[in-house]
Amino acid sequence: MSIATVNQGSVYRFSAETTDGEGNMKALLGGKGAGLAVMAQLGVPVPPGFTIPTSACRHYLKHKRLPDELKKAINAAVAWLEEKQRQRFGGAEQPLLVSVRSGAAISMPGMMDTILNVGLSEANVEGLAAAGGGLRFALDSYRRLIQMFGAVVLQVPKAHFDEILVRVKREHGVEFDFELKEDALRTVIAGYKACVLHHAHRPFPEDAREQLLMATEAVFQSWTNTRAQHYRRMYNIPEEAGTAVTVQAMVFGNSGMDSGTGVGFTRNPITGDPAIFGEFLPNAQGEDIVAGIRTPLPLSELAKTTPAVDEQLRLITKRLEKHLHDVQDFEFTVQRGELFLLQTRTAKRSAISALRCAVDMAHEGLISRTEALQRLKPEQVNEILSPQLDLSDVDVAPVTRGLPASPGSAVGQIALTADRAVSMAGKHRETPVILVRQETVADDIHGMEASVGFLTAHGGATSHAAVVARGMGKCCITGAHAIVVNEQERTVKIGELLLREGDWLSLDGLSGRVFACKVPLRAGSLHNAMLHEFLGWAKCVSVTPIRANADTPEDAERARRAGATGIGLCRTEHMFFARERLEWIRAMILTEDPDQRREALNHLLPMQKSDFASLFRSMDGLPVTIRLIDPPLHEFLPRLEEVDERLRRACQRGLHVGEITALEQLRERTRDLQETNPMMGHRGCRLGITHPEIIAMQVRAILEAAIAVQRKGVRTVPEIMVPLVAGVGEIRAMRKLVVETAETVFAELRQSTPYKFGAMIELPRAAVCAGSIAKEVDFLSFGTNDLTQMTFGFSRDDARKYLDAYIEAGILKKDPFITIDREGVGALMQMAIERARESNPEIKIGVCGEHGGDPESIEFLETLDLDYVSCSPARIPAAQLALAHTAIAGAAHAATVVQMETRQETLVIAM
Amino acid sequence: MSIATVNQGSVYRFSAETTDGEGNMKALLGGKGAGLAVMAQLGVPVPPGFTIPTSACRHYLKHKRLPDELKKAINAAVAWLEEKQRQRFGGAEQPLLVSVRSGAAISMPGMMDTILNVGLSEANVEGLAAAGGGLRFALDSYRRLIQMFGAVVLQVPKAHFDEILVRVKREHGVEFDFELKEDALRTVIAGYKACVLHHAHRPFPEDAREQLLMATEAVFQSWTNTRAQHYRRMYNIPEEAGTAVTVQAMVFGNSGMDSGTGVGFTRNPITGDPAIFGEFLPNAQGEDIVAGIRTPLPLSELAKTTPAVDEQLRLITKRLEKHLHDVQDFEFTVQRGELFLLQTRTAKRSAISALRCAVDMAHEGLISRTEALQRLKPEQVNEILSPQLDLSDVDVAPVTRGLPASPGSAVGQIALTADRAVSMAGKHRETPVILVRQETVADDIHGMEASVGFLTAHGGATSHAAVVARGMGKCCITGAHAIVVNEQERTVKIGELLLREGDWLSLDGLSGRVFACKVPLRAGSLHNAMLHEFLGWAKCVSVTPIRANADTPEDAERARRAGATGIGLCRTEHMFFARERLEWIRAMILTEDPDQRREALNHLLPMQKSDFASLFRSMDGLPVTIRLIDPPLHEFLPRLEEVDERLRRACQRGLHVGEITALEQLRERTRDLQETNPMMGHRGCRLGITHPEIIAMQVRAILEAAIAVQRKGVRTVPEIMVPLVAGVGEIRAMRKLVVETAETVFAELRQSTPYKFGAMIELPRAAVCAGSIAKEVDFLSFGTNDLTQMTFGFSRDDARKYLDAYIEAGILKKDPFITIDREGVGALMQMAIERARESNPEIKIGVCGEHGGDPESIEFLETLDLDYVSCSPARIPAAQLALAHTAIAGAAHAATVVQMETRQETLVIAM
Repeated sequence: MSIATVNQGSVYRFSAETTDGEGNMKALLGGKGAGLAVMAQLGVPVPPGFTIPTSACRHYLKHKRLPDELKKAINAAVAWLEEKQRQRFGGAEQPLLVSVRSGAAISMPGMMDTILNVGLSEANVEGLAAAGGGLRFALDSYRRLIQMFGAVVLQVPKAHFDEILVRVKREHGVEFDFELKEDALRTVIAGYKACVLHHAHRPFPEDAREQLLMATEAVFQSWTNTRAQHYRRMYNIPEEAGTAVTVQAMVFGNSGMDSGTGVGFTRNPITGDPAIFGEFLPNAQGEDIVAGIRTPLPLSELAKTTPAVDEQLRLITKRLEKHLHDVQDFEFTVQRGELFLLQTRTAKRSAISALRCAVDMAHEGLISRTEALQRLKPEQVNEILSPQLDLSDVDVAPVTRGLPASPGSAVGQIALTADRAVSMAGKHRETPVILVRQETVADDIHGMEASVGFLTAHGGATSHAAVVARGMGKCCITGAHAIVVNEQERTVKIGELLLREGDWLSLDGLSGRVFACKVPLRAGSLHNAMLHEFLGWAKCVSVTPIRANADTPEDAERARRAGATGIGLCRTEHMFFARERLEWIRAMILTEDPDQRREALNHLLPMQKSDFASLFRSMDGLPVTIRLIDPPLHEFLPRLEEVDERLRRACQRGLHVGEITALEQLRERTRDLQETNPMMGHRGCRLGITHPEIIAMQVRAILEAAIAVQRKGVRTVPEIMVPLVAGVGEIRAMRKLVVETAETVFAELRQSTPYKFGAMIELPRAAVCAGSIAKEVDFLSFGTNDLTQMTFGFSRDDARKYLDAYIEAGILKKDPFITIDREGVGALMQMAIERARESNPEIKIGVCGEHGGDPESIEFLETLDLDYVSCSPARIPAAQLALAHTAIAGAAHAATVVQMETRQETLVIAM
Repeated sequence: MSIATVNQGSVYRFSAETTDGEGNMKALLGGKGAGLAVMAQLGVPVPPGFTIPTSACRHYLKHKRLPDELKKAINAAVAWLEEKQRQRFGGAEQPLLVSVRSGAAISMPGMMDTILNVGLSEANVEGLAAAGGGLRFALDSYRRLIQMFGAVVLQVPKAHFDEILVRVKREHGVEFDFELKEDALRTVIAGYKACVLHHAHRPFPEDAREQLLMATEAVFQSWTNTRAQHYRRMYNIPEEAGTAVTVQAMVFGNSGMDSGTGVGFTRNPITGDPAIFGEFLPNAQGEDIVAGIRTPLPLSELAKTTPAVDEQLRLITKRLEKHLHDVQDFEFTVQRGELFLLQTRTAKRSAISALRCAVDMAHEGLISRTEALQRLKPEQVNEILSPQLDLSDVDVAPVTRGLPASPGSAVGQIALTADRAVSMAGKHRETPVILVRQETVADDIHGMEASVGFLTAHGGATSHAAVVARGMGKCCITGAHAIVVNEQERTVKIGELLLREGDWLSLDGLSGRVFACKVPLRAGSLHNAMLHEFLGWAKCVSVTPIRANADTPEDAERARRAGATGIGLCRTEHMFFARERLEWIRAMILTEDPDQRREALNHLLPMQKSDFASLFRSMDGLPVTIRLIDPPLHEFLPRLEEVDERLRRACQRGLHVGEITALEQLRERTRDLQETNPMMGHRGCRLGITHPEIIAMQVRAILEAAIAVQRKGVRTVPEIMVPLVAGVGEIRAMRKLVVETAETVFAELRQSTPYKFGAMIELPRAAVCAGSIAKEVDFLSFGTNDLTQMTFGFSRDDARKYLDAYIEAGILKKDPFITIDREGVGALMQMAIERARESNPEIKIGVCGEHGGDPESIEFLETLDLDYVSCSPARIPAAQLALAHTAIAGAAHAATVVQMETRQETLVIAM
């Protein structure tokens, strides 16, 4: 009898002999039904059954009743099942019991799950006992049916059933459910039935077919409950999809020592190890595993206890993986030596497992390389690469949270001053130290070098601590407002909690969580070779080159190892934060005398020159974009309060007059340089206009360094980039300065070098005026961080106070500092690119804001047809994968894939 | 003989009988030549002469020689002049002397001016003596010719002539030039000639015609000197214009007591009084007035000494004014009872004079009203209206400068704290006090009320002091970094200068200058009735209505008097700064408990409601736009350092624990609310999202007030405006809140009122997303101040450090906070308007930033087709005039003028 063709009345059977459905009918059969259909077709032993499709759910929800044709089809399918199992549904002897399970195309935890033992009743509980497991087993099965049915179908609160069970156990003086004897179970059953009658205003249905139909309707109805609706909204699942219902003959794993039940994965979901992995409990049902009274055995033990079953399971799961092209998560039951698969589905897995499975399966030929690339989310690459707190075996709650300002994790002992951090860390940094400050300043740099991570009470994602941390590749949490540092008493208060210097602290730089203990660290880069192979594939697929934001030769090395095709942003000022340079920078800022300023700059020149030379050498043959000085000068000076304090102490100690004068001068200048809104203050090319001598020094350092390394055979064409340009006037003035300096340098050295000149587009006005700016430059680079700040008028340092509320209220879908705002910032970028390309068709345009490393933003950036995106070295791998995903999804798909498959031999997998 | 038609050889004669030129030939004849032509044609007695036109100058500069035709024409003209004067040029008897003067179309102080007595030589100096003035006069005239000619034509440094004169005076033991006797003068002449020979390597030319031609060439050549070039660049005068040369028979005012010389204006250039005004020196030449040895008489004395001349001068100047339609600045000489006019030109005049002359001349029918409107610059209206320091009789230099944060002037005694300001000012504010602070805070408000002006060391144009000052209409200078206030010692240090509390200070709010003395004040609104009539004409001409930015009922009254057609911006938070309100605002901010916050808001509700009711009453029948709360909450709290100080003192005094706790709480909250970049911080509608209860209170107050006044017959439709909107999400959330609150209020009162809902466009993102925002609102209003800040990324408070350098270097032409930046901010506005009107054709769009009061910006705003511009009440008059100018210049010119002339009867001149 084929019933698959009957409209509204169709159900889809599955069994070794007859299977109406197909594996690709997930939308109609749900994940569970489709999986069972596949298994049945592949000859995998499954308890036979049938699936009521999602179309029936849609019909039911519209008409509030099951169509008569469907009822007929269900009856026919039950009859087919009775015949196949040689049992009678509702029969007193050899009763056929079935499970009823919901199953949507996309698994939804918000809906009802499973009702077991449907078909049992007062009338056949003895028959079940006689047919096999005995009376206690039969009564217990019946009790469970009433409870599940009562709770799920009749919506009697589960607590009422629990109360009855607890009361009976107390009356019988037993502790565990399984200790209840037959008479006690009969008391429970009577209690349950009374409970159903009282709360549902109807008796428990003893008719098997009524049970089945009611359970089916309840599953359908559950599609509309609040949790399910919420879940669908969250994951964008269409309302009209509906759920399927799978009805399947019960098998019992608790039928003796030759029986059992288990769950497993075709590959290790944690490590990706390509061997079957899971747990098995002999003589048990699934519920017993959940109850946790008996400890399950690892699946590897199966070979010892039942080698035949083990062999069969291995073959079956291999076949499933081969057929379904992905790692499977399966359930099985062994009933008296006979193996049944109950379910198979795509396995969820850790990032590392996902990587290994994808690469292995590509090697095994199970999937293509493009498919393999799609098996990892870009975020998972970050997860793999960053060392992480291993919280799996530790039961601790975070003591506070801050802004995740620099990723990674850090575990170390608290130090409250830079000096203490240095002394605690020891000469060879043998002790891990976490520097905890209200906020860090330039003077803390030696302490920061000595620490593994930083935690500050103030500051945001662009505060000193954050910037330095990202530069150093260290973990940093800023803006942890709950902490109060008391340097005198050497304590940190977090609410009621009092920590002392030397106490252990663990920082999770990805979430901003702070733990007041020593959480173990799990290294993140174990799978480097494999990741490299994988990223090599990604690089072949993507169209847009990735550059790195790198400030030091070390950064540059790291970037090159990570596959960067150049440096898109070198922030020169970060080179100034080193201690011996800071002195000269300060000297330069503090003097009003041009000669003294020139002298200070002359001291800085060779330092910068050697930095640049190293960068050029590291990136030999690749472009290096150097941004001229950007931050306001006061960032290089100590805080005003600190100077005040020093001045006070100096006076008390009766310091030398000259020193006091120097401090007073420092104080004056620091006060002068303070700004109300430093983000919109005297910085970027504005410094270049008022202090051209700084720029001249930097340009000289860049060009002298380039010529010096070129003489030694290094290939480099430096790209000089002007930050915070608002319009064409500034870029013309800066261009003049750069050209004049270059001419002087070339004349002095009697050698010249080609170089490029460009502007950052990071102010809304620059985006609007990009057409005229483009005429003056060789390249433009979007600084999307500042552009986002100015376009929204959101100060990144302060925005947390309301950004969370915005996202919670749905006013913004995403934090625009993490994922680029397409409607506003993106529209300005598009406008700027159009105008720039129109007025200068030769121009190169890139992005060097942090969005360049955000996978979701990359999807948008790819649509802008950029010449490169630049991000921090640590984010290159994820960005590379995101670009690959976008390329794969894009129109160039087919062509690119072919190209990759032929280019695979030339991949350089060198890390 | 007509010579006006001879090309390249033409000169243009003028005399009572023959005049070749016309008054409208300024480009060819220069201002001086055209003026003389006009006078000659009108029958005004002028010494006859001729003008060598600018075309000859162009020819000369190109070919470096005078064309032969021109030389011929000059000779012919000289012959004509000889005949007319019955004198001989260069003749030994009755010699004809002429003056040679440059005269470009636009007067240029950078060029040579006049050489007198051309035609004198060794050969005819005796003849001149015989013809009239005597030998001393003749020798002195000759000496002057050699000196002027030597310096101007032969470029011998004037100092050499001075040395000779000084030496001869010493040798002859005299002090003044006029004491030199004939023999001494002969020594001087000999010395001068030797000096010319030595320095110019050629003798002084004794030939009259050579003198004339050389003088002419020298005038032409002077067109290219550096000063002249610089001047032309500055004032955009075309390089190719060239200068004319006017050659005129000499007349001598020093020919006896029936002679004399004078200068005058047809109306008073200071007051505008419609009577001839000037000075007269009997028996003198122009030089004698300049020498300042004799005191000239006022022109009014002329009636007593020479009534006929007086009568003649009055008639002549009246005729000139009538013919030239403007006030004239003239020079004249009386030679033996005969009056000659030497020059006439449009008179420069003060703002008040310009107003009075324009209005009077329109009344007299001399000019039309549109012409009258064009006779005043909008800035001059501001000058008329603001009381100003009268520095004309005071010789003081400013001791420092700050940011001109609120216009006007203030003169008063220094007070260093708010309390001292109150006590010094006295109960009836009998003593003018200037509050001088490092910076002001909310707590200073009572002191600010008691003061006439504020001076602060810190802060910018949007600092507390500036905002409050503009709200109060008081003068304020901020950011005067040179001043250091010492409250303890009650002193103010400005560099080396030490001032004490009680010392006098004068502030010029227009320039930011600070004077350490009591400068007299000149009242600015003396001419109100006349100004009002004038502005009434302006209002009739302009198309775009002007609204006022007004925060208080007093502002609203002032605005209405100034002719505002509504309120375009009421900043509600300014109402909170009053002392008794500040308490409740703080209570609201400090509590975390929603109930306590609601209670504080309940206290504020009736206050706001009564403010709004007053506003609605004041503006009965006109629209009132109310902006919801905008500044960050910390602006309502005291400064952190101040709280620290209070806390320290409280602990020392052993204050009650409760009070200390309160202070600690205040400190905590103040610290919490501090922001790194407050301009981009938690403010505007961001407060509305996180603190909806504040908005709900404000909306309730607005609507309850509207309904209350409507019940008393007042016509009002409140316009509720949301500040700092970044996108459609916020405006939807705020709309929902407003609508819900309105529904509640309407239900409670059982009455409803229409109202409008709008958004401010002051963030670049809002401009980009104006299309979607427009769908949610009835109106949009550009906040051009913030829009300029964000578009440029210029913090207005900090930008002075580099803005001056930008303007100096020509990177920016204008301060974009004063004159709107068309290329960037303007482009964003245009884009926003297009998108908004496209998605909501009914929408009303206005401007409420300070640019709305800037005449140059108004010219641009007019092109945007706005529904209104709004500015502070004080700036309405100038804005009105600027709008009129734009309208007159625009295409609608003719039609509008006709409309105005017919509408003049209906003008409401009510102030």
